[in-house]
Amino acid sequence: MAAPKTAIQPTRNEDYPQWYQEVIKAADLAETSPVRGCMVIKPWGYALWENIQHNLDARFKATGHKNAYFPLFIPLSYLQREADHVEGFAKECAVVTHHRLEPDADGKLQPAGELEEPLIVRPTSETIIGEMFSRWIESYRDLPLLINQWANVVRWEMRTRMFLRTAEFLWQEGHTAHATEQEAVEETLQMLDIYKDFAENTMAMPVITGAKSEGERFPGAVDTYSIEAMMQDGKALQSGTSHFLGQNFSKAQDISFQNDKKEVEFAWTTSWGVSTRLIGSLIMTHADDDGMVIPPRLAPSHIVIIPITFKADDPDAILNYCHKLAADLGVISYHGRSVTVEIDNRDIRGGEKTWGWVKKGIPIRLEVGPRDMESDSVFMARRDKGHKE
Amino acid sequence: MAAPKTAIQPTRNEDYPQWYQEVIKAADLAETSPVRGCMVIKPWGYALWENIQHNLDARFKATGHKNAYFPLFIPLSYLQREADHVEGFAKECAVVTHHRLEPDADGKLQPAGELEEPLIVRPTSETIIGEMFSRWIESYRDLPLLINQWANVVRWEMRTRMFLRTAEFLWQEGHTAHATEQEAVEETLQMLDIYKDFAENTMAMPVITGAKSEGERFPGAVDTYSIEAMMQDGKALQSGTSHFLGQNFSKAQDISFQNDKKEVEFAWTTSWGVSTRLIGSLIMTHADDDGMVIPPRLAPSHIVIIPITFKADDPDAILNYCHKLAADLGVISYHGRSVTVEIDNRDIRGGEKTWGWVKKGIPIRLEVGPRDMESDSVFMARRDKGHKE
Repeated sequence: MAAPKTAIQPTRNEDYPQWYQEVIKAADLAETSPVRGCMVIKPWGYALWENIQHNLDARFKATGHKNAYFPLFIPLSYLQREADHVEGFAKECAVVTHHRLEPDADGKLQPAGELEEPLIVRPTSETIIGEMFSRWIESYRDLPLLINQWANVVRWEMRTRMFLRTAEFLWQEGHTAHATEQEAVEETLQMLDIYKDFAENTMAMPVITGAKSEGERFPGAVDTYSIEAMMQDGKALQSGTSHFLGQNFSKAQDISFQNDKKEVEFAWTTSWGVSTRLIGSLIMTHADDDGMVIPPRLAPSHIVIIPITFKADDPDAILNYCHKLAADLGVISYHGRSVTVEIDNRDIRGGEKTWGWVKKGIPIRLEVGPRDMESDSVFMARRDKGHKE
Repeated sequence: MAAPKTAIQPTRNEDYPQWYQEVIKAADLAETSPVRGCMVIKPWGYALWENIQHNLDARFKATGHKNAYFPLFIPLSYLQREADHVEGFAKECAVVTHHRLEPDADGKLQPAGELEEPLIVRPTSETIIGEMFSRWIESYRDLPLLINQWANVVRWEMRTRMFLRTAEFLWQEGHTAHATEQEAVEETLQMLDIYKDFAENTMAMPVITGAKSEGERFPGAVDTYSIEAMMQDGKALQSGTSHFLGQNFSKAQDISFQNDKKEVEFAWTTSWGVSTRLIGSLIMTHADDDGMVIPPRLAPSHIVIIPITFKADDPDAILNYCHKLAADLGVISYHGRSVTVEIDNRDIRGGEKTWGWVKKGIPIRLEVGPRDMESDSVFMARRDKGHKE
């Protein structure tokens, strides 16, 4: 018997890495850009990131963290200080050396206005946030300081893979400072736990948590914990990290405070982050040989309604029926969001339409033809089930 | 009679530009960073930006726009193409020329790994989004294409002022492509109208809208419209722009489509944006000589409750009373958000606390002492009123 035809070629079994790329393309999540190693995140992929953001952001705020924004550029001297302090600091990064373009004799634009000190595009904001913390923290009354940032960062990766490893990526980085070691350890574990709960209950993605070995720790961290998602090829993918930094960074960056006995101490710090890599984890956990499968709590849209009008006497009646159905469904609330419904009335072939939505992984697909309308019923397919209901 | 003492020195009348800086400092909205021209947006200021984002984003989505994300870097050749095409293109920008740091003989990190083609940190994404549009658009069925991006951009400003003009700033940039001139003009005016409605009804900031003169247009635009907010010093501040680009950019970037008669046409495009400058407009519209005044629909927190416990026999009873009050207020919904309440139980002087919140501009301040609790009442002050109620 021949293998059943799948929407994604090759299948997972045939070529897992290539299958992954094809799912991203077929689901219209992202594509490579003209800038080496940088991807364009397309609307369907970006909506996934927005839903990840909204859910995590609410969890961060509920535990007392506040968002702020720090500069994109880091002075070279800051990385120099870290390089002195911490062995193994990544040095593959984008370096800004000029601040102007000027035409040469041939009219070609050339870099001009050389900077006295080169600027690095942040690979992480650890050093600049540490510098600000050292200014903001004076007394034990200023602690704990619980800050998060949603930002883009750049690491000059030589071998890139969409969502998993790109030169530029989007992430959040939490940075906190505490008066005691115990409080900082508790914070580190609390954030690990939030990541685990988010992965399992919002992304429907089982993860294993634990401490990394010494060689895998974030440079300068006392302990690095991670959530590891289990991919369908049997490998684990690091999907989020939470670092207990002890006093290593606070000593390097002079983050000190006066305690209630008026003695000066160094603060205990943490940092923790997840990135657009989570979308890669999501694909490798849920997608199948027909494309993306999106857990409903993260779905850009929950339901698509496809009007089947090609044989209808009165296509407008069917379309009106679909709009009424969409309005009825739209008032339902699902885990704090209104159910979002798309009506796909594009002027393309029905099969192309159906397979398009299967590949995009929308949780529920409804089809409404003349007979369905007459019997006040709809055809429904759930993307996570192999059969039709 | 001596002038009454104000929290902000100098006052608006004494020195308007300096007053502006002092309000930002006193309200803890932002501060200068160690990176020239780049600011750190602190939690109270960033929460304003988040509220601006949420409100505008919902308006964009309700009118059919979808968010996406494009690379931070623009290849130099793209700007070259624009420079050829459009006179007056800004050339003050951050130029990435290297992708690695390596220690020299003295152990000092130096730029290494020179790029074949320098990369520009986006001053706007016009050119890279145009390039992607030219790939995505083939047929009239792909139009209109309605995309928005929330991002950071960099323009190497020589004279910077916080929120108003900084080297890096946060913004949104909408980019759309249409099949007809009329549709693109309607889009341009629709977005101008959304900005105006948002400014007036969410920010409580009256604006004047209109077309800019030829010399003030965005380079390459056929028409540039703006919202201009009226500041307390009698000047107008451009706070958002919407551009009708005609076919100028689509011709330069080859954004063409096959119409329903199978003829190839150039698309009609628009772009529109607002930025963190809106926070500058907000300050200059609403703040007074005692600091920030925040319109309630954008307030990071609506209400602060200050327990007055220093003379109390039972401070815990007062604190419990405040928590109950906060819980009661927290269930109220105000323009789609739950009312947010802070309890300020910090161990600092009462006067410092009160003035801190006045300067931050929180809309409502409640104070609860032993007598208030006994009579089941509270002291209330509205920040936008000169008197106590």
